Amino acid sequence: MTKTIDITELALRDAHQSLLATRMALDDMLPACADIDQAGYWSVECWGGATFDACIRFLNEDPWERLRTFRTMLPNSRLQMLLRGQNLLGYRHYEDGVVDRFVDKAAENGMDVFRVFDALNDIRNIRHSVQAVRRNGKHAQGTICYTVSPLHTTETFVEMAERLVELGCDSICLKDMAALLKPQAAYDVVKGIKTRCGDGVRVHVHTHATTGVTLVSLMKAIEAGADCVDTAISSMSLGPGHNPTESLVEMLDGTGYQAKLNKACLHRIKNHFAAVRPRYQAFMSNIIGVETDIFDSQIPGGMISNMESQLKQQKAEDRLEEVFIEVPRVREDAGFPPLVTPSSQIVGTQAVFNVLMGRYKVMSSEFADLMLGYYGKAPGERDPEVMAMAEAQAHKPAIEQRPADLLKPEWDALQTAATALPGCNGSQEDVLTYAMFPQVAAGFFGKRDQGPIYLGRDPQATDKPSAAGTDSTSVRSPVTYDVKLNGRSHRVSVTPINP
Amino acid sequence: MTKTIDITELALRDAHQSLLATRMALDDMLPACADIDQAGYWSVECWGGATFDACIRFLNEDPWERLRTFRTMLPNSRLQMLLRGQNLLGYRHYEDGVVDRFVDKAAENGMDVFRVFDALNDIRNIRHSVQAVRRNGKHAQGTICYTVSPLHTTETFVEMAERLVELGCDSICLKDMAALLKPQAAYDVVKGIKTRCGDGVRVHVHTHATTGVTLVSLMKAIEAGADCVDTAISSMSLGPGHNPTESLVEMLDGTGYQAKLNKACLHRIKNHFAAVRPRYQAFMSNIIGVETDIFDSQIPGGMISNMESQLKQQKAEDRLEEVFIEVPRVREDAGFPPLVTPSSQIVGTQAVFNVLMGRYKVMSSEFADLMLGYYGKAPGERDPEVMAMAEAQAHKPAIEQRPADLLKPEWDALQTAATALPGCNGSQEDVLTYAMFPQVAAGFFGKRDQGPIYLGRDPQATDKPSAAGTDSTSVRSPVTYDVKLNGRSHRVSVTPINP
Repeated sequence: MTKTIDITELALRDAHQSLLATRMALDDMLPACADIDQAGYWSVECWGGATFDACIRFLNEDPWERLRTFRTMLPNSRLQMLLRGQNLLGYRHYEDGVVDRFVDKAAENGMDVFRVFDALNDIRNIRHSVQAVRRNGKHAQGTICYTVSPLHTTETFVEMAERLVELGCDSICLKDMAALLKPQAAYDVVKGIKTRCGDGVRVHVHTHATTGVTLVSLMKAIEAGADCVDTAISSMSLGPGHNPTESLVEMLDGTGYQAKLNKACLHRIKNHFAAVRPRYQAFMSNIIGVETDIFDSQIPGGMISNMESQLKQQKAEDRLEEVFIEVPRVREDAGFPPLVTPSSQIVGTQAVFNVLMGRYKVMSSEFADLMLGYYGKAPGERDPEVMAMAEAQAHKPAIEQRPADLLKPEWDALQTAATALPGCNGSQEDVLTYAMFPQVAAGFFGKRDQGPIYLGRDPQATDKPSAAGTDSTSVRSPVTYDVKLNGRSHRVSVTPINP
Repeated sequence: MTKTIDITELALRDAHQSLLATRMALDDMLPACADIDQAGYWSVECWGGATFDACIRFLNEDPWERLRTFRTMLPNSRLQMLLRGQNLLGYRHYEDGVVDRFVDKAAENGMDVFRVFDALNDIRNIRHSVQAVRRNGKHAQGTICYTVSPLHTTETFVEMAERLVELGCDSICLKDMAALLKPQAAYDVVKGIKTRCGDGVRVHVHTHATTGVTLVSLMKAIEAGADCVDTAISSMSLGPGHNPTESLVEMLDGTGYQAKLNKACLHRIKNHFAAVRPRYQAFMSNIIGVETDIFDSQIPGGMISNMESQLKQQKAEDRLEEVFIEVPRVREDAGFPPLVTPSSQIVGTQAVFNVLMGRYKVMSSEFADLMLGYYGKAPGERDPEVMAMAEAQAHKPAIEQRPADLLKPEWDALQTAATALPGCNGSQEDVLTYAMFPQVAAGFFGKRDQGPIYLGRDPQATDKPSAAGTDSTSVRSPVTYDVKLNGRSHRVSVTPINP
């Protein structure tokens, strides 16, 4: 008896978010859609995460229109999105009425599977979204953010899974955003969930490839009973991205498990994105190969580059090592939150502040909110002294309740504000876009009719890495520069001299 | 009870052979040697394969001197080499007396572990080398070349292991040079060997990373009882190279297996090669990420680039697909040899000939030799018609005996020829260098005293890939050029204008 393992393809969302700073244009995805639709995936992740933000901020694309296009182009596929629970796709908590409308509209525009997570694993921040998804008759996937800390054990993750099942989730996702999930842990957690919650509870596993071990983790998760794993087509895989779809398929050969995907489709999807990816060279992540330091620092790659650029702005690049040491201390003070958007940025920025200005001498308002419970309940005890400093600096008390319970109905105000903006089309979708990113949405509405901005570049026009055996000097043809010489500016064409 | 898994580090041999066309200078390895020596590896592969050839052909380094330097710099380490059985490090069969002298001298200069293989898995081509290694009191590792064909089953590999053990090998290596070894096959073969030959027989597993699945294969091999696996430090890993050492270490966490390596040493080795690798950008393999097509074509990456360049020379680049279809037919005609040096080149070249000139209209002399048994016994039946054509074209009969049995003692002639060359120092090592590569050795002897040729380049002088979010123009900092302006030459520093 061979068990079929389902696959979620990440190429259209997390893969280009992780590898190409979420800059891929819809036009570069559409030619692959027919094959993606026929390949036999369990679902196609294509929306949510940072794609909504990137659409309106960089690409001048309407994210709702993108979703409707996917619905049309992928008629046989389950469309899947990543949803930050009560944060939706923004960076604050929304009142339940906004959550309801967002989920309703996403479902109405074609979304099938909602992967709902909370950065603190606070189930109260997930509950309302899950209920809204179920009310729409769609698939609600409750998500456990995997992290490593003295407080996070197999038991804590299994317990969370149990509570997500109680909430009515249709499946559980074990989400390893930082590639920290080692093979044995993957086995133990998945096995634990299946044992506690029953074999009938679907378990999906999402990993990144950054540390190089997680394809093995997927194998172990499958052996423990995982039903579906996330991968990205090989030409959009690895580095800070994900394990390659084709490798997953081949890995299972003869093991008693199989991924029933159409290899001819995979081949064409691979070739398509192999041609597309170089167009986004300018946005490509610096991480090539693997980085296992993350196991010790537990600092995800994206967080490191954020902290580096913050230090650079302060001309303090040399203090990165100190920040690396400070991050785990800040994280412990905050009760060991998983490091994922937005907690990763909040903890990272505070660690930079602490190194540059002294520990908690200056506290970001976000970090104060994190300490005081305004993002939800931390996994562990928070440091009482730091909490007191947060209360003093933020001039507000710590809270215990679900953060969204403090919010008053806000839909009408959002609607009034959004529809007053030039270019707003008055739809609920536009109001939701405004709700997520008020400033950016205002700009987007005003120039939406100019159509998409394409940020890719013809790879022929960009520099290629040197081929084996050729000269490694990068500039080989004449280049035109403005050259200042003796105080005068000249426009000259120059050719480098080979040493 | 946690079982310790031994590790062979490949950075100093196969890693730079696979990733950087074997061009790394000894000087770029030496600063890492103290840490490599202290890291706790079972062995350090550092010699043999293509390194001998590359030393005298490209680097003007004496390979024997390189070996002696490693011996000095790695006093606590087992030094390991890859030896092509009766071919030694050359491309023809040598008479047993030459094999004896080569092994004696390698042992005398510091080699500890000899990994001996034959491209056809013909044990008769391995036997004499193994005996020579044992006579020297060194570690003889008998090697099985893993391949995929209708004839190659778990049973055939296990049977070969049994015969290698009978030969007196101290350990068995399962060598997967094309990254075709899938997890279940790795488990089955290793388990089969351990069951048949006894748990006490050491099994080492060597894989490449090209297809993306082989770290999982190493996990399965370990679960089946493998004692030692080959990896390369992360900054010299992946692509057509090997799985990263640090990922292997982390992968085992909590599994009941452990690799007892010193993480601080690994970290410094990684940082060293991370700085060195970009110097060899010009020689870097084009394969980045993974390539799973190999599972269908069974054509290793290096063979594809060879065939591409052959077609290019004939202005027939468009016929590569036909060659891909022809390779498996040629391989079947030849009795399904594994595709590894030199059989991979021989089969690939003949496939190109067949496509360009008609099937076997022209036969390379090497392919005729392969068909007629002059490389040894093929795994399966050869096509009788093609054999007849080979006999007709090569004007010699098919043979059944061990090819080296046809050879007369040749040492004296080699010695006479070598010592007559200007620059030959008269040592047996020089005679062996000449024996391996007569033409190249002649040139090398003549210019040896000029010292090493360093083929790396300061990475500051080469282009770096653009960082995320920045402009894709490759040159961002001022560069100094000689600029001719109005007939006069100026040395100026210029900065590009961002568009």
